[in-house]
This record gives sequence, structure tokens and C-alpha cells, in this order.
Amino acid sequence: MSVNNKFEPCDFVLYGTRGDLARRKLLPSLYQLEKAQLIHPETKLIGVARQTMSAEEYAQMVDENVRNFTKDEICEDSLARLKARCEYVEMDFTKMDDYKGLCRFTDPERVMVCYFSTPPSVFSDICKGMKHAGVIDDSVRVVLEKPIGHDLDSSKVINNQVAEYFNESQIYRIDHYLGKETVLNLIALRFANSLFTNNWDHNCIDHVQISVAESVGIEGRWGYFDEAGQMRDMVQNHLLQILTLIAMEPPTTLDADSIRDEKLKVLKALRKIDVSNVREKTVRGQYTRGFVMGKEVPGYLEEEDANTRSKTETFVALKAEIDNWRWAGVPFYLRTGKRLPSKTSEVVIYFKSQPHNLFKDSFPELPPNKLKIRLQPDEGVEVTVMNKLPGLNNTKSMDLQKTKLNLSFSETFKDERIADAYEKLLLEVMMGNQALFVRRDEVEAAWAWVDGIIDAWKQTKEPPAPYQAGSWGPVASIALLAREDRAWYESK
Amino acid sequence: MSVNNKFEPCDFVLYGTRGDLARRKLLPSLYQLEKAQLIHPETKLIGVARQTMSAEEYAQMVDENVRNFTKDEICEDSLARLKARCEYVEMDFTKMDDYKGLCRFTDPERVMVCYFSTPPSVFSDICKGMKHAGVIDDSVRVVLEKPIGHDLDSSKVINNQVAEYFNESQIYRIDHYLGKETVLNLIALRFANSLFTNNWDHNCIDHVQISVAESVGIEGRWGYFDEAGQMRDMVQNHLLQILTLIAMEPPTTLDADSIRDEKLKVLKALRKIDVSNVREKTVRGQYTRGFVMGKEVPGYLEEEDANTRSKTETFVALKAEIDNWRWAGVPFYLRTGKRLPSKTSEVVIYFKSQPHNLFKDSFPELPPNKLKIRLQPDEGVEVTVMNKLPGLNNTKSMDLQKTKLNLSFSETFKDERIADAYEKLLLEVMMGNQALFVRRDEVEAAWAWVDGIIDAWKQTKEPPAPYQAGSWGPVASIALLAREDRAWYESK
Repeated sequence: MSVNNKFEPCDFVLYGTRGDLARRKLLPSLYQLEKAQLIHPETKLIGVARQTMSAEEYAQMVDENVRNFTKDEICEDSLARLKARCEYVEMDFTKMDDYKGLCRFTDPERVMVCYFSTPPSVFSDICKGMKHAGVIDDSVRVVLEKPIGHDLDSSKVINNQVAEYFNESQIYRIDHYLGKETVLNLIALRFANSLFTNNWDHNCIDHVQISVAESVGIEGRWGYFDEAGQMRDMVQNHLLQILTLIAMEPPTTLDADSIRDEKLKVLKALRKIDVSNVREKTVRGQYTRGFVMGKEVPGYLEEEDANTRSKTETFVALKAEIDNWRWAGVPFYLRTGKRLPSKTSEVVIYFKSQPHNLFKDSFPELPPNKLKIRLQPDEGVEVTVMNKLPGLNNTKSMDLQKTKLNLSFSETFKDERIADAYEKLLLEVMMGNQALFVRRDEVEAAWAWVDGIIDAWKQTKEPPAPYQAGSWGPVASIALLAREDRAWYESK
Repeated sequence: MSVNNKFEPCDFVLYGTRGDLARRKLLPSLYQLEKAQLIHPETKLIGVARQTMSAEEYAQMVDENVRNFTKDEICEDSLARLKARCEYVEMDFTKMDDYKGLCRFTDPERVMVCYFSTPPSVFSDICKGMKHAGVIDDSVRVVLEKPIGHDLDSSKVINNQVAEYFNESQIYRIDHYLGKETVLNLIALRFANSLFTNNWDHNCIDHVQISVAESVGIEGRWGYFDEAGQMRDMVQNHLLQILTLIAMEPPTTLDADSIRDEKLKVLKALRKIDVSNVREKTVRGQYTRGFVMGKEVPGYLEEEDANTRSKTETFVALKAEIDNWRWAGVPFYLRTGKRLPSKTSEVVIYFKSQPHNLFKDSFPELPPNKLKIRLQPDEGVEVTVMNKLPGLNNTKSMDLQKTKLNLSFSETFKDERIADAYEKLLLEVMMGNQALFVRRDEVEAAWAWVDGIIDAWKQTKEPPAPYQAGSWGPVASIALLAREDRAWYESK
């Protein structure tokens, strides 16, 4: 069996292995890496949770969850190999002595990867416990799941707690959007293609749209979501991360800090939104009863456990502006919401219109070129171009039509699975590559900007605008672009 | 029956209606226009030739040729309609009185379109005869088939002869490449898409390749071809016409003269090639015995009727340079030949390489973007871009791959026939639109440049380099690009 040996063996410690994320995403992703022979033969998987379990019982739990949350047919060999790696440590995160249990399985000679798939409130305890057990050294890598705080101050508290024990170079903050094929492809498309590189600034781009639409509602976590809201839950991390990849200056290399330095500069250049302009630049919405994909669904205030007076937004649209040389005058319109008509996420780059229209007989307004990067449901890239309408039966010698030059990952690579974002990210952690993880200063710059908006909303005291479940959000979202003679790309 | 009335009824007079071109191309094209209901109900088709025939016999001849040279199933209704239009005039082109026969069928109130599908040696007689018959007025349109001369002087003679009777605005010089969908699409792609418009100059384009490869040999017309050679037969018209469409400045409108003014400027800006640099900038070849598509074929000097001492070239490759602001330093490599491995014609725009390669781990030399316009066999447009190689199983976080964004006319418009170039051009003549026809000054500028090269070849007295039938021409053609660290696009 040939094994890809590009990384070292490691002790992969999964704190909170019985949690939702671990069961649904992390264990199945580890299975996929196993199947792809990308896990070193000597690597161990050490599950950590409060419950009492034997290693065998843990392996059985892994087995069940991999089967439940894997779509394609299970490769029994691979699953057996993964299960053979399993060890289990029972632990109350607050009991320092429990951490000693780790030492039974870990090897100081090997890299230890610790995935904190737990609420951030226990990060500090875990760090302390690891210290107590004497397993911390420079080779340990720590993976932190979001949310890292709910504003700048709370994120600093969490980051400070972890920073007491680990250097920034050991910390891998997950934003799973950075593991998506098409998000990564943004870097390739922008910097490997002169056709795009040469057109990537305010001279050539009219505006950018980033839409992350969810069709689901709150999914039984009303209490958690209501504390956060869509702005903290989606914009602060996923949408701003995508924005930075589109907007950043070309990095010198693909090294982690080379990329993250450039992303940070974008976040710092975001024009502040405050109470003086928040009404003009942002839209908040909250869904009401309606129909999503033909099914009647309750409104946000009618969901289980809802506080009927909540003013939390389930929809955000906003106009972001980047005050630098490249992007002066180019708005980035962001939109995200729950209970929208479909689950679609896409980035659409609208290039500028032609300065002179040769084809006004067939197109009085020549549609501009567009580059669309679909993140879901069908990851792919699409360039809208104008070309000649073939055939004779048109009134002028040169009738045009819009056509799409299309690259669908799922169609083009039919035989290849599109890897889940977590697979990519887990692999990167095991390889020790931080490029796809969010640096502390990025998190903080994003919070600083988002906090300004949330604070401005508080000052206006306006409730979010209601929108019917199954619609594309409040009409104010349409007006946000219409005022500037633009429109949201029509998702299908 | 709905009829498209965007043009006037006309008397379409087809001189040389029994000739090869008329039978194979023009009559079947008229049938297609008929089928598409693009011929005015009152339009007549008046065949002219030397033979004695009745209108019924002529209609029968039309019937046979349409059936013989139409690939798809015949629509009997349409063919019957076309035959009902048929009139016939028997004529010895040199007998002035014979032209009076035209008057039996033509109507001075209607536009007369005269297609000279004859050798240019009789153009003058035909003009004279029409004058004699009194059928010339400002509304007559004259369509001239190539070759219009074999050099600048002889083309002037022919053009002068016709100009005695007709204004330039009445003369439609055919270059059937200008009727090809993909050639027309060059105009649409260039000027309707800012992504291309913004990248269309020496800052962004490295070089351009125009290849017109024929797999056939001389096809029984050795004598004619040997007088001409590939340079006169293909480069002077088709290849230079394509070059002008790629290189011209954006015209102000799509009007005939607006476009042709810009094309002319390109032809005039072509850097002269003379005896001092003709060896370095051009390659002549002549095919020898070999295999094309698995079949053994004779060499050029072994063909039927061949003069075994002929020095006529059957292959030309050359480096054209355009001395203007847009194209300084951007070579246009032209290549055309007979008995090449396949019948493929394509234009490939090579954009410049990225100034800095972020992806050198996966591509030490990042392939540049390319825009390929296929003229045949499968008309279409293709953009080669780099994107991220999907999947996990690669050694770096960012492995790239080349992908093609593809627009194949025949695949995209499966249900639609791709119209033959002659259909488009006949329709344009009937509509009175000269944009797709070559103006006299264009023909002359093209001859002036080509004459310079042919003259330089004569001075060097070097014979063409032999190349095996079924190869891509003499090795000197490969060296022409290799010397500048470039290579011909690999046709498949």
C-alpha cells in the first residue's frame, strides 16, 4: 500500500469528539483522508470527551458516525484502518488531573494536533490542563473552532487565554470557507491568469457581490443564534474572508503570512460604517412565516424556544467599501440570510461596461462581463461573455447573445469527489501549513469593523425589517443596489 | 407563411451558374436562404451561362445541385419555391447582344444583384454587355469572386475595368472567410467584452497565431495553383483578412466603411518584408510524397499535370509585424499549407505570462492564458485558464491545472445548423450591407505587402523547402517560432 508521506505522523487529539461538529464533519473527514491514504500509518486518533468509554466503544462510535454522515459507499478497509487508530481519554475539562490520561497515548517525539471542538469557554481549561499534564511544547498545534468571541473584546479574551500557552504559529483558527475548493480557486484564478489579473481593479471592475444564502432556519439552536445574529454568525467570518481573498493585493508567495498580511490590509482598509451612515449602507432583516421550497415554515419569532421580542437579524445586506488604491469606488455588496429561497453561495465579479457600445442595435445596453464563482450547490466557475448569435435569422449582421463559458467542478471532474472543506483543512493542519487559517489580527480587524456596524444598529434602535421566509430578504436589500442602478445577481 | 421582409426584392443574376462554385456553394446557399425564408417572395434567380437551356431545364439543374451539395434533408417545399424563381439566359459573355436577354426577366424598378462567378478575365466583358443592354444603374450590386488578380498591378487592372461601370459602393468583393461565424465572432468577442477589450494590446498579448491548414492537395487544379501558390491563394486574402479583424482599432460603428477604414490601417501598418529579411521572417514549403490521415498521397511535383521543376510554394509560414501603437513588439505568426495532417483553422491569442509566478511549485513556468478561435472543423471559442486542481491528493495546498472554458458552436447550438459562409454573404449582398466585403484599397494594400515578399523570394532564388505530406510543414516553420522561444499551438 503506497502511502503519501508528505507529513509526519501525529497524535491527533479531538477534544469534544462527541459533539455535533466532530460527529458530522470531523470524523467523516478523517475517514475520507484515511481512504485517500493521506494519514500517516503511525498517526493516532485520540478522542476526548466527558463520557466513560473504552477505546473499542469509541472506535464503534467513530464507525457509526462515519457511516451516518458519509454519502458515498463506505470503504470497509479504510474505516477499519481509521478505527485501529482510535484511543479514548475520558475527561472533565475542568479537572486538571484528567489530562494526564493523554500521556498514556501521546508520544513527545511526535507532533500533537489538538482540535478544540468545544465551546470557547473551555479553551482556557484545556490549555491549562495540557500544561498540567506536561504535554505542551513548540511542536503542538492547536485548532480552534469558531465562534472566537462575539465581539472584539471577547475574542481578545479567548485569544489571550490560548496565547498564554501557545505561539501564534501554533494556532490554527478554522473558517471552513477557506477549505472550500472554489474559495481556494479564487487565489488560483486571480493570480495564475493574466486575463483576470489585468482586469482586477477599479479600472475594470464595477462592483462585487458576495451572497451566502441559506434555506434553513435556526435548526434547533435558537438560543445560541439569537445571541449572535447573522452578522456575527456569517459576515464577520465567512463573508469577510471571501472578501479579503477577492480584494487582497497579490501576495509575494503563497506562504501563510504572505497571504495573511495581505488579507489583513484589506480588513484594515474597510471603510467604517457608523450611526451616521448605517441606514444607508446596511440592511437587517428577520424572517416571518412563509414557504421555502414549497414547505410552510414558521417565522423566526415563532420558532421553538423563541423570545417573541427578539430583534436579532437573520438577514444582512451591506455595502462594503475598501479605501485603498485598487478598490476606490468599487462597492462590495454582501448579502447573507436564513430562510432564503435556496442554498446558494456565490461571488459575482461585475466587470465594467464597455465605454462605447458598437452593438446597440441588438443590445441597447451591452451586458457587462461577469465572473461568477459558485461555492454551492455546484462548485464551479462561470464567465459570462457576449458573442455573436449564430445563424442568419436575425435582423442585423451582428446580433449578439450572452453565453457562459462554464467550468463546473462536479461536471468536469465527474469521477472525483469534491472534498469537503474540513478534509482539506484537517490535512493542512497535519501538514503544518497555516495559510488557510485565520490569524489573530485578522479575526480582530474583522471584529472591529463588524462591531462598528452592530453598535450603530444598537444606536438607531430600529428593529430588523421583516421578510417572508422563502423571499430574498427585505425589499430594502434590493433598494440598496437599486439606488446605485445595480441589482443582485439572480440566483437560480 | 411569414416572410422576413428586411430587404427588397431583387433580380439575382448568377453569371457562370454552371461553374463549380455556383453549383457547389451558391445554389445550395440560396436554397438554405429560401428554406430560412430569407428571400423576398418576388426575388428572381436568373442563371446565366453559355449552354442552351430552358428555364425548366435550369430549374432541374438547380434541383440536382442543391440535392447533391446539401448535407441535411431537403425541404421539398423550399426547393420548389427556389425553382419557381428560376429564369435562364443563354449567353456568350463576349457577345454584346446576348446581354439583351437579361431584359426579358429583370425589372428596372428592382435592385439587380449580379454575381460574377466567372474568371476575372470576363469581368470586363460582362460589365460592357450590361451597359450595352442598358441594365446598369446606381442600384445594381456587383459581386466579385476571387482571385482579383495575382498581384497589385493585375488587381488594379481588374478593379479599374469594373470601376468604369460601377462605384465602389456597388461592388461586393467576396472573401468567404468573412462570412464564417467564428470570424465574425472575432468582432463580437473583441468589442463586446471588456475582459478581452482591456487585454487587447502589446501590454497584454504576447503574440498571435493564425493557422489555416488544409489536408487536401491540389485537387486537380495544378495548373491554376502553380501560377498562384499558397501565398497568393491563401495569405493575401483569408489570412490577412483574419489578421486585420484581430488587429484593427475599435471602429466607431459597425458600418461598412467604419470597419474597412480600420482594417485598411492595419494592412498599411504591416512592416515590409524584403530581400534583406525574407529568410528570417518567412518560410516557403512544398510537399513531397507522404501519408495524410493514413492514406499515401503523391508529392506536389508528382501530381497530375505537374511541371516537375515547379518552385511554387504549397506552404507558407511567416512572421508579420504591425508597426503601430497597439501592436509594437507583438508578432503575428501566420501559417497555411496543403497536405498538412488535418483540416484545421484557428486563431490563437497568446496572452502574456504573469510577471510573477506564485505557483512555481506546481508550474515552474505558468502557462499563459490563451484565447483560441476555431474556424474549423468545429467552430468555437476556447479560453485556456489556470485553476486549482481539485482534490486533496496533491503535494501542495495549491496545485494548478490548465482548464478550458469552452464554447463550441456545434455543441452549444446542437439544433441549429451553422450557416455556410456563402449563405451569410449572399444575404448581406441582398441586404446591401458591404461590411463583410473587401474594399478595393484593402485588396491593394494586401497585394502590396504580399508582392514585396514574393518579390524577395524571387530575388533569393531559393526553392521552397520540401516537407512530407502529412507533416506540419518544413522544420524551418518550427524554427521560425523556436528562435523566439515560442511554439505553434498544437492542433488536435
